[in-house]
Amino acid sequence: MTADGSQPPVLKARRLGLHTQHEAVVVMRTDCHVCRAEGLAARSQVLLTAGARQVQATLFQIDGDLLGLEEAALSEAAWMLLGVEEGDPVHVSHPPSLDSLSSVRRRIHGNRLDAQAMAGIVQDVVAGRYTDVHLAAFLTAGAALPLDADETAHLTKAMVEAGDRISWNAPVVVDKHSVGGLPGNRTTPIVVAIAAAHGLIMPKTSSRAITSPAGTADTMETLTNVDLDLATMRRVVEAEGACLAWGGAVRLSPADDIFIRIERVLDIDTEGQLIASVLSKKIAAGSTHVVIDIPVGATAKVRTEEAATALAERLTETAARFGLVVVCRQSNGDQPVGRGVGPALEARDVLAVLRKAEGAPEDLRRRACAMAGTALEMGGAVAQGQGAAAAAATLDDGRAWEKFRRICEAQGGLRTPPEAPLRQALPATRAGRIVHINNRKVARLAKLAGAPDSKAAGLTMEVRLGDEVAEGQPLVILHAQTRGELDYALDYASRNGDFIETEV
Amino acid sequence: MTADGSQPPVLKARRLGLHTQHEAVVVMRTDCHVCRAEGLAARSQVLLTAGARQVQATLFQIDGDLLGLEEAALSEAAWMLLGVEEGDPVHVSHPPSLDSLSSVRRRIHGNRLDAQAMAGIVQDVVAGRYTDVHLAAFLTAGAALPLDADETAHLTKAMVEAGDRISWNAPVVVDKHSVGGLPGNRTTPIVVAIAAAHGLIMPKTSSRAITSPAGTADTMETLTNVDLDLATMRRVVEAEGACLAWGGAVRLSPADDIFIRIERVLDIDTEGQLIASVLSKKIAAGSTHVVIDIPVGATAKVRTEEAATALAERLTETAARFGLVVVCRQSNGDQPVGRGVGPALEARDVLAVLRKAEGAPEDLRRRACAMAGTALEMGGAVAQGQGAAAAAATLDDGRAWEKFRRICEAQGGLRTPPEAPLRQALPATRAGRIVHINNRKVARLAKLAGAPDSKAAGLTMEVRLGDEVAEGQPLVILHAQTRGELDYALDYASRNGDFIETEV
Repeated sequence: MTADGSQPPVLKARRLGLHTQHEAVVVMRTDCHVCRAEGLAARSQVLLTAGARQVQATLFQIDGDLLGLEEAALSEAAWMLLGVEEGDPVHVSHPPSLDSLSSVRRRIHGNRLDAQAMAGIVQDVVAGRYTDVHLAAFLTAGAALPLDADETAHLTKAMVEAGDRISWNAPVVVDKHSVGGLPGNRTTPIVVAIAAAHGLIMPKTSSRAITSPAGTADTMETLTNVDLDLATMRRVVEAEGACLAWGGAVRLSPADDIFIRIERVLDIDTEGQLIASVLSKKIAAGSTHVVIDIPVGATAKVRTEEAATALAERLTETAARFGLVVVCRQSNGDQPVGRGVGPALEARDVLAVLRKAEGAPEDLRRRACAMAGTALEMGGAVAQGQGAAAAAATLDDGRAWEKFRRICEAQGGLRTPPEAPLRQALPATRAGRIVHINNRKVARLAKLAGAPDSKAAGLTMEVRLGDEVAEGQPLVILHAQTRGELDYALDYASRNGDFIETEV
Repeated sequence: MTADGSQPPVLKARRLGLHTQHEAVVVMRTDCHVCRAEGLAARSQVLLTAGARQVQATLFQIDGDLLGLEEAALSEAAWMLLGVEEGDPVHVSHPPSLDSLSSVRRRIHGNRLDAQAMAGIVQDVVAGRYTDVHLAAFLTAGAALPLDADETAHLTKAMVEAGDRISWNAPVVVDKHSVGGLPGNRTTPIVVAIAAAHGLIMPKTSSRAITSPAGTADTMETLTNVDLDLATMRRVVEAEGACLAWGGAVRLSPADDIFIRIERVLDIDTEGQLIASVLSKKIAAGSTHVVIDIPVGATAKVRTEEAATALAERLTETAARFGLVVVCRQSNGDQPVGRGVGPALEARDVLAVLRKAEGAPEDLRRRACAMAGTALEMGGAVAQGQGAAAAAATLDDGRAWEKFRRICEAQGGLRTPPEAPLRQALPATRAGRIVHINNRKVARLAKLAGAPDSKAAGLTMEVRLGDEVAEGQPLVILHAQTRGELDYALDYASRNGDFIETEV
């Protein structure tokens, strides 16, 4: 009780076990003293304080006795961010107003933002103070009037500075990125193994899949431990020159994950935002040289050579402002790479290439050699023009496989990827030549079959462009861990027979 | 169980008593068969089907045994929209993809939208298929590149057609609107009484407060029953020529409420959206003639005469496309109107003017007569130029009061507005002349004191611009129903001493 007889706005923390994705949610009784005294309404934003930590959360109110009058029931996101124990006091108040929102409004109305304004926005975004509405407005404004070169650089810088930064005790630190959109394009583990076999430093952190059937971290997780803290990463890199870790243990450009989540819902992907996204992660990771794969195809993310060239120029120029050397390579994006689409299925392709197994996907090997070759040249390991051949030799003589094995051992041991219990072929409904493969639909099919959450799920491509098929011959084989997921994929395939098109 | 041994995605409805504002939320066990078989992730959108009704909802997942494995626990919004009973079967599936989102994306990238595209968007918005992210993107796009005249008309039409429409058996149906932003500007009940006393048909539906300390419906609710269904509205209007009802029982332009909620969060208020908002409600309500009050002032919604003139032109022109006659009147927006700010306190001002009570606020009376005068002239009740005088005469001879009383009786009886138990004056900290009153801060202060949810809460203005005050003389008196709310308002006032500025 305070001096004037009113109670301070404090409740007791309760862990609700509620999964709300990233969103911090607090549930309080409609008739609790805090809601009444503070005049709080359902779905308003509130500021939760526990000890030294603060979290902005969405308030839901509940009637009845599922909760006690004294309880602030927290979603998992809120619980983790606040770092409380059951019953700890949680102070609830109105959140402060955000100055950076006036920058967002100015940007909506066509005014360019300077470095300070971008920094203010990104700091508030990372602190969890922006609701989805604010995030969507900021991203939409940057699509309606695209970010210019200065704004893109300001945003990149702000995103780097709002997170952790790693520094490596090496003059050259190489990295690799793919603009994405191409299922099965899992060159990274192979590129890392080749580069490290040549003595380059390549401390690779990768994301899990966001919209795709597998991210490099998902694939690597079927082969070894990828959840490394920074100390372990450093130990592995010191021993082997490289690692293949999930980026989750370090907060590299944390704003990026927040922006991407909203962009995915809107299905907009603007160039300035993409550039800031890619470069902020690489700069924060301490990279000095980055080779970027830009697949080009009608159903890839980048659809024309002109668009790829323009994107490459902007990537290179923006990177140069930060002293980062970027080389972009266009690649064919007309069809998936390798055979597998899904974490474990792609891991099998990677192993096949590294081990020179019979039937190893030649396209995956060729693409990995092209990317690794550029990395070797950029890093000064081989002379210009000799990268791809050197990369291929490193695969052929087993050094890449040996290096990959050693990296996995250093991360905790090499594992065999799991296999899915359910498999079903999707047969060609008529004979003919394969003339079109829709990458987006192939990816969707693999996701419906359960990838990436079900590690063994996904699909294998049984045909490639130009192949002649007979009626009834399998086009793809679905791999699933549950019957429900398999049914989902089958249902989608029956309604989207054009995911692979044949012509007589 | 289905033929292949899997279970259909059906759960049992449970009412959770969860208040989430408008948002339909369903909570399901993370380990329930539906989440597992359908591969549902937390915070994804799902389609709930119960009988013939469908609702798109946000999914939260919960661990532990607060819910049963077979339960789909529904927020109040989802419960109402689905119209289920405890234990009813609820089918859960992935929502269909939305074609109208491609129109939103095209609009973001600068393409104008035609009538069909606008209709598609508004239909999906009203059906609850847009998340906040989609809504924010649509509204931001229309702010970044303002809606042109055609788009504004298309949007207006789409908003009218996505809801109910009322028709009245009368050639002239007058209505009144204020663009808002001025606390205490509660002329509507007075205007309606005067217009109806002159035989005009004025079936007024009003909203509750969204961002302000009181809406006309909140104020009228302290005087009579405003929650009228359409049949009751018709009966009252047939008997008295007018009503003063809350618009909630009829779905007039339901998209408007959804858009306004997001605009409030973004604090953007674009002209095209404002015009579509105002006109769609009036057209759907069956009005033929509307007088619109545009208060102009530094802290009102419209800040300059030029902006008011431009807005008036666009309002009038757009209305004309629908055969609706609109007359806009600029008014002074430098300070609050009347004395009270808050539902009951404004009701007292209205009663004072109607009853010609001593100390009745002269500014409220004058503004009401100006608006009513225009309505009388537009509706053909008096000759041009004689409206304001005729309106004043109707107040003076008691006919307006008599009509108001009869309308309230027809709606269920005239009540006395409640009084707040707690009052506290905010004194002038120094002597001087009142030179500036910040409408936004006055409104915020009244809201912190509890308005509009606490009907008796708010504040009374004890000074007006130009008044000389002594140190310690009350500037406003806060009215509150709880100590906590009073403290909130006092705390805000102590940090915002400039809400009323004096000069020596």
